Amino acid sequence: MNFRVEKDTMGDVQVPADKFWGAQTERSRNNFKIGPEASMPTEIIEAFAVLKKAAAFANCELGVLPENKRDLIAAVCDEILEGKLADQFPLVIWQTGSGTQSNMNLNEVISNKSHVNSGGKLGEKAEVHPNDDVNKSQSSNDTYPTAMHIAAYKKVVEHTLPSVEKLRNTLNEKAEKFQNVVKIGRTHLMDATPLTLGQEFSGYVAQLDYAMKAISNTLDHLQELALGGTAVGTGLNAPKGYDVLVAKYISDFTNLPFITAPNKFEALAAHDAIVESHGALKQLAVSLYKIAQDIRFLASGPRSGLGEIMIPENEPGSSIMPGKVNPTQNEAMTMVCAQVLGNDTTISFAGTQGNFELNVFKPVMAYNFLQSAQLLGDACVSFNDHCAIGIEANETRITELLNKSLMLVTALNTHIGYENAAKIAKTAHKNGTTLKEEAVNLGLLTADQFDEWVKAEDMI
Amino acid sequence: MNFRVEKDTMGDVQVPADKFWGAQTERSRNNFKIGPEASMPTEIIEAFAVLKKAAAFANCELGVLPENKRDLIAAVCDEILEGKLADQFPLVIWQTGSGTQSNMNLNEVISNKSHVNSGGKLGEKAEVHPNDDVNKSQSSNDTYPTAMHIAAYKKVVEHTLPSVEKLRNTLNEKAEKFQNVVKIGRTHLMDATPLTLGQEFSGYVAQLDYAMKAISNTLDHLQELALGGTAVGTGLNAPKGYDVLVAKYISDFTNLPFITAPNKFEALAAHDAIVESHGALKQLAVSLYKIAQDIRFLASGPRSGLGEIMIPENEPGSSIMPGKVNPTQNEAMTMVCAQVLGNDTTISFAGTQGNFELNVFKPVMAYNFLQSAQLLGDACVSFNDHCAIGIEANETRITELLNKSLMLVTALNTHIGYENAAKIAKTAHKNGTTLKEEAVNLGLLTADQFDEWVKAEDMI
Amino acid sequence: MNFRVEKDTMGDVQVPADKFWGAQTERSRNNFKIGPEASMPTEIIEAFAVLKKAAAFANCELGVLPENKRDLIAAVCDEILEGKLADQFPLVIWQTGSGTQSNMNLNEVISNKSHVNSGGKLGEKAEVHPNDDVNKSQSSNDTYPTAMHIAAYKKVVEHTLPSVEKLRNTLNEKAEKFQNVVKIGRTHLMDATPLTLGQEFSGYVAQLDYAMKAISNTLDHLQELALGGTAVGTGLNAPKGYDVLVAKYISDFTNLPFITAPNKFEALAAHDAIVESHGALKQLAVSLYKIAQDIRFLASGPRSGLGEIMIPENEPGSSIMPGKVNPTQNEAMTMVCAQVLGNDTTISFAGTQGNFELNVFKPVMAYNFLQSAQLLGDACVSFNDHCAIGIEANETRITELLNKSLMLVTALNTHIGYENAAKIAKTAHKNGTTLKEEAVNLGLLTADQFDEWVKAEDMI
Amino acid sequence: MNFRVEKDTMGDVQVPADKFWGAQTERSRNNFKIGPEASMPTEIIEAFAVLKKAAAFANCELGVLPENKRDLIAAVCDEILEGKLADQFPLVIWQTGSGTQSNMNLNEVISNKSHVNSGGKLGEKAEVHPNDDVNKSQSSNDTYPTAMHIAAYKKVVEHTLPSVEKLRNTLNEKAEKFQNVVKIGRTHLMDATPLTLGQEFSGYVAQLDYAMKAISNTLDHLQELALGGTAVGTGLNAPKGYDVLVAKYISDFTNLPFITAPNKFEALAAHDAIVESHGALKQLAVSLYKIAQDIRFLASGPRSGLGEIMIPENEPGSSIMPGKVNPTQNEAMTMVCAQVLGNDTTISFAGTQGNFELNVFKPVMAYNFLQSAQLLGDACVSFNDHCAIGIEANETRITELLNKSLMLVTALNTHIGYENAAKIAKTAHKNGTTLKEEAVNLGLLTADQFDEWVKAEDMI
Repeated sequence: MNFRVEKDTMGDVQVPADKFWGAQTERSRNNFKIGPEASMPTEIIEAFAVLKKAAAFANCELGVLPENKRDLIAAVCDEILEGKLADQFPLVIWQTGSGTQSNMNLNEVISNKSHVNSGGKLGEKAEVHPNDDVNKSQSSNDTYPTAMHIAAYKKVVEHTLPSVEKLRNTLNEKAEKFQNVVKIGRTHLMDATPLTLGQEFSGYVAQLDYAMKAISNTLDHLQELALGGTAVGTGLNAPKGYDVLVAKYISDFTNLPFITAPNKFEALAAHDAIVESHGALKQLAVSLYKIAQDIRFLASGPRSGLGEIMIPENEPGSSIMPGKVNPTQNEAMTMVCAQVLGNDTTISFAGTQGNFELNVFKPVMAYNFLQSAQLLGDACVSFNDHCAIGIEANETRITELLNKSLMLVTALNTHIGYENAAKIAKTAHKNGTTLKEEAVNLGLLTADQFDEWVKAEDMI
Repeated sequence: MNFRVEKDTMGDVQVPADKFWGAQTERSRNNFKIGPEASMPTEIIEAFAVLKKAAAFANCELGVLPENKRDLIAAVCDEILEGKLADQFPLVIWQTGSGTQSNMNLNEVISNKSHVNSGGKLGEKAEVHPNDDVNKSQSSNDTYPTAMHIAAYKKVVEHTLPSVEKLRNTLNEKAEKFQNVVKIGRTHLMDATPLTLGQEFSGYVAQLDYAMKAISNTLDHLQELALGGTAVGTGLNAPKGYDVLVAKYISDFTNLPFITAPNKFEALAAHDAIVESHGALKQLAVSLYKIAQDIRFLASGPRSGLGEIMIPENEPGSSIMPGKVNPTQNEAMTMVCAQVLGNDTTISFAGTQGNFELNVFKPVMAYNFLQSAQLLGDACVSFNDHCAIGIEANETRITELLNKSLMLVTALNTHIGYENAAKIAKTAHKNGTTLKEEAVNLGLLTADQFDEWVKAEDMI
Repeated sequence: MNFRVEKDTMGDVQVPADKFWGAQTERSRNNFKIGPEASMPTEIIEAFAVLKKAAAFANCELGVLPENKRDLIAAVCDEILEGKLADQFPLVIWQTGSGTQSNMNLNEVISNKSHVNSGGKLGEKAEVHPNDDVNKSQSSNDTYPTAMHIAAYKKVVEHTLPSVEKLRNTLNEKAEKFQNVVKIGRTHLMDATPLTLGQEFSGYVAQLDYAMKAISNTLDHLQELALGGTAVGTGLNAPKGYDVLVAKYISDFTNLPFITAPNKFEALAAHDAIVESHGALKQLAVSLYKIAQDIRFLASGPRSGLGEIMIPENEPGSSIMPGKVNPTQNEAMTMVCAQVLGNDTTISFAGTQGNFELNVFKPVMAYNFLQSAQLLGDACVSFNDHCAIGIEANETRITELLNKSLMLVTALNTHIGYENAAKIAKTAHKNGTTLKEEAVNLGLLTADQFDEWVKAEDMI
Repeated sequence: MNFRVEKDTMGDVQVPADKFWGAQTERSRNNFKIGPEASMPTEIIEAFAVLKKAAAFANCELGVLPENKRDLIAAVCDEILEGKLADQFPLVIWQTGSGTQSNMNLNEVISNKSHVNSGGKLGEKAEVHPNDDVNKSQSSNDTYPTAMHIAAYKKVVEHTLPSVEKLRNTLNEKAEKFQNVVKIGRTHLMDATPLTLGQEFSGYVAQLDYAMKAISNTLDHLQELALGGTAVGTGLNAPKGYDVLVAKYISDFTNLPFITAPNKFEALAAHDAIVESHGALKQLAVSLYKIAQDIRFLASGPRSGLGEIMIPENEPGSSIMPGKVNPTQNEAMTMVCAQVLGNDTTISFAGTQGNFELNVFKPVMAYNFLQSAQLLGDACVSFNDHCAIGIEANETRITELLNKSLMLVTALNTHIGYENAAKIAKTAHKNGTTLKEEAVNLGLLTADQFDEWVKAEDMI
């Protein structure tokens, strides 16, 4: 492998000759061999590219960066956003907690690549300086949290929410389709009074509607950007008006409603916006768990389970039991939900641990947030496409179970009182008979009265 | 101990002769000896009293309960709300997961006490039947979640939020008072560029503002009541219009904006509203942790810590070290926050585990929610009264630390570039000298330039 | 209310005239109105009484406390252990994180009560000084963690483990009783190859055996006591040999194998022993959850669920649905498990937050640990007595489901290969027929071969 | 892209022509587009290769697989273990919860590659059948948990524990090196009585010793393998003696002490061994957090922090503040710990959710476990190499702080009593003077007595 020498304020470092990164990136690579290489999420790298470009434009407009440097910087940012420099960001999540080294990775790559773009050679001093130009009016302390918000907001709005909506709409179609399928209810897992399968599904739809609203409620906080706070929130070394302007550029470049955070001290020292939005993602996970769990139990069988619905058969289910088909999408979904619950523990913990002017758990928060938002979105689409859209009611089975049920007796409460009704149900349970038989045997009502009063379809 | 015989649909039970509860309460007492007696939160009992009264009024207005029974029921509910029957609710959290037995505890006490109020004797058949009258148009499955929402909403709105607001206002006063106290910033725990102590405190204020907003965002969901859904959400055995009317009565009786839940299936089978609001309480805990942690570190010392602020001396701090004073309010606060983080794990877990028409983790969710809301509110008031209001700046110490700092060098970036500035800081660090000395020694600027460019008060 | 004046190094305090506590306890009462009064666990108070007595004996034996003071102290400790002074410990969990105020509560009560025991009056200066005598050779920093270990160890060994053992033995009896009951297996909730109900229960027994072993593995660490470390772990102001001797006395008084911690710095600054043992309690909760969940699903029905086992009918299950019986013990158990999982989050969080020579999350750790250990033990006994011992197999239902199953086809893999076997199962599923019919129809084997090869009882 | 047709019991599937996997792998690829491709941990793939080879040997030895097939299978397994087939395992974590599809991925690749190794062409029927031969005497239900245990055990024993040991030894060297450096203690962050820096570090060493012991205590459970249980734990379709024999082969091939699990029902339906061992990893994270947190606070400054120790300067710490150096290794470590705490939530949750004969959260448990074990090990090495080994005492600063401290007054307790000692400390604090001055002023002792009694070096 060939190397060239790069230097920073600490001295010389050998860097792979064909890479655009510089001394500080290379130091980080060597000093943090923790987990797989290049684990810093791509979404963060891309968000950095957006903000570096926006900073260059704002700096230029405010007269502290010349146009040619602005354009050199912006050109490399666009290359990053086009995915052309994907192998230039080798750093890991488990680095400094401010993400300084990833900020410098961007600064160095932009500086060096701009030099090459201008016809220079790697190793020469670039016209665009990584700190003085690319990082102008910035600090890791305000850029990294800005990148977190850009990446998180974008992922939630462009991926998670539309994916949930997709699943929600499918479940709503099912709720409508099944609106007349009367079935036995189950509370405590035990037979209860009837409802329709459509009503059951309407509960799932309501859960997802609440979850989407809860997520949306948090977006106001998430759209606020730390940029302009620089090192400790005071905005030292940034020109007046820069914070508002740079947020406007970011908003323009992303087509998303980002604004500058009104209090930059909070924006650097705490990441409550991430805690808040992930709390809502966790609520979504809670909802999805209940839905996926219900559906796999309702589909259980085919002969020794509940079997009230049928879900698509997507794969052979067993390497040893021939002909077995399993609720695999539900399992993937519930595993994703388990992951999100754990991620919430990590994010909440990390959120408590800010000290003074800086929270230094930024990368781990970003990583967990983005993983949750990605997995939840992906799992909703997968569950939708390979399970929900194919759900069918097994009406034969549903009717069979409904007719056997003892809980229809509840309809008699208002006619003969709770205690008499209980006597009928208990006797039928003990004797293995029907409610009607025992109602008449016990002399509590006539067969005609039974038929008139106990109608499952009137109990929904 | 004297006993009387009470009966339910399962047969006879011996009940303490002087207690108003009946057979089902007694069965639960005997069957669930788990943890301390009477652990079901009082707030839940009181919320039940409100809803039982509201149900009696709604049932009466809709013609399914006579006025005299309504009044008998309402009178006992008022006694409960006045705290007169506090020893009549012996059940524990760790009972059936629907809270059925606590619902029956209320039904039985109301029935028996109303009988006594009417001049009857305990042990006689009461005119007001626990199931057919007190529980009319209700099920445990819709009453318990209704009680959860009433209790939770009330606690948050009447206790937690005002307590946070109180602390927030004190911190805001401090932020204003300290707005000109320039001090060294700290990032990564290391010396950084300056800010004012007021700016530092403004970050705390912002955190609490966001937390209060986040909590408020969840209240729409929490104000929705399950009542009217009865056993499985269909509203079986409840008269038409009952759900809206009973919510109106509850709203009137509590003076809080409760409404009926639009989807009762969701309201019984999932408790995402509890998950959602507790998620916001957890965010508050995250914020408070950071604040309390910062304050105790800033107050550390008196001679070997940071010592930038002074907090009230409330108690002798040590049983062995004479004269020691400790940040005890901060410790109480951070312990409360740790509790709330754990409670969130419990609530989220419980939230995932609904099955079909019912979530049977209701009491554990109620218990954890109410504990969090109570403790957070109490801790905010305690911290406010015994710590925050007495915080003072130790300006001598603050100035001493500021003047020694090397990070003022950052002001030179825009004049001599990052690399030259770094050289000055590193040399001063190595030699134990001042920035100015080394700046001049290194020939990078003159003493006058240094004095002009490096002013802490211009760096905030 | 009458008051007397007590004083400490900070000055005078009004104390209720009839209480034995002194100035510092009263300060704490006033300064920490967080949650219900007197929430500091009784087990901690009692453990303190043991250690105060042990310290008096050790101090006396080492010549730093006269015999009469030793006896005065010991007498009050015995009163506390007999429960005679239960109303003298009003402090809350949410106080200083070292538990200093509870340590002083003990010191003050012992001092004042010994004075009264000697014929003195409250308000007079007691012969036994709270700090100089009762607290001799001690600090809150080593007494509170010692009390934590005593209380935790005792609770686990005397309550939790025997309770788990009781349930384990009942489940083992069931496993033996059901060893020949062949039933359908379920994987992914779907029908699978058969096993016996006894085998299924043997898995539960194995889980509890592992859980008990895991808990036992942690006891070595938990039996180590911090006492003797005094303020920061160095043992300042404690006589030589004191730490070993006081542990011996504690061991004698409790009849439990406590020893002095080899490294006192760890014992004050970290509470990894609590984290470790609670981790094992959490594992137990995980195991119990699976068991209780399985049993409630297997008992689900009575007509629309799995219905393979019957559990005792302990209470009317519904306030609206007559005759309904629910798996209430399982619900109590699973709620307890949910609580323990949350408690583990709190304890782990608190465990990370020690700083320098002291972890100041002691009371919250003690509270959560003791709650988990108590609830798990109680829930095991309750579940055992009111559910597990009454479990019966519903053999009719079990046989019905077994005979219908398609997964018996797996027995054919070794005769006709996985793919042919799958063809039979899928055809039978599609046509709603039996395996045998389709096996013969498809010409893959003869009816005689089927009968010889496919025997559920040979598949276990 | 070129495709060939592969088939399974569900029909034909298009598979990339150059890949060895078959129909079921391809179905899974298409049906589970959740998160990044190929996320199933490599360690699991490799553990599968070990167990497939071991199964082939055991099957052969027991007479159910011919030698030529054994050798064909073993050869491909060896290729996998040599990393030659790394691009043949495209499946994700978020698939079926039994890991069936990854089991089939192995079965298919081994079958097809063995065919190519024998001179055949892809697309032809292979002599070695994926189910009937490669998967012989196996099920996903016992292979996946076996792979989990192999991978987890191996990672912990070969990576995590040695890495912790390395750090432990470095800290121990520091403890010895610093054994005479007397410094001020800190409790509640406040100045306390002195100890040596070596004693402080000895506490860290003790924590890591306990953590390693706790992890080791769990290995007995983790070394038990499910293999031989096949579909539901009964061992259907596996020859007698197979389970013991296959464990022996696995033990031989890995040189690790694996044994067959005594109860296969537990081994499939619960993953308490994973919960147990990860609980111990979580304890390690708790310990490491405390250590890393302490070290970064002790190293804080350089001029406005505690500054008692110096840690290596590895990178420029700030993109805006020249000359800043940060405790970056500590930050990486504490972020890793935060991740592990969240992973524990996920694993515990997943552990509770087994149903009947199978827990279907296997891949998410494996993923989180392996991530924790890898990151903890890596972080220990990184922290060791780039931080711990370079820690130096700043003796000048330590002595300065020690001499100013008021808590040396504690040495006077045994001479003049707690209350008099407190008076001295409080007066000195108020007046900003020294203890000695005030001790003499207050007439409580002479200067000579002070010098004799108050010696920091005698207080440790």
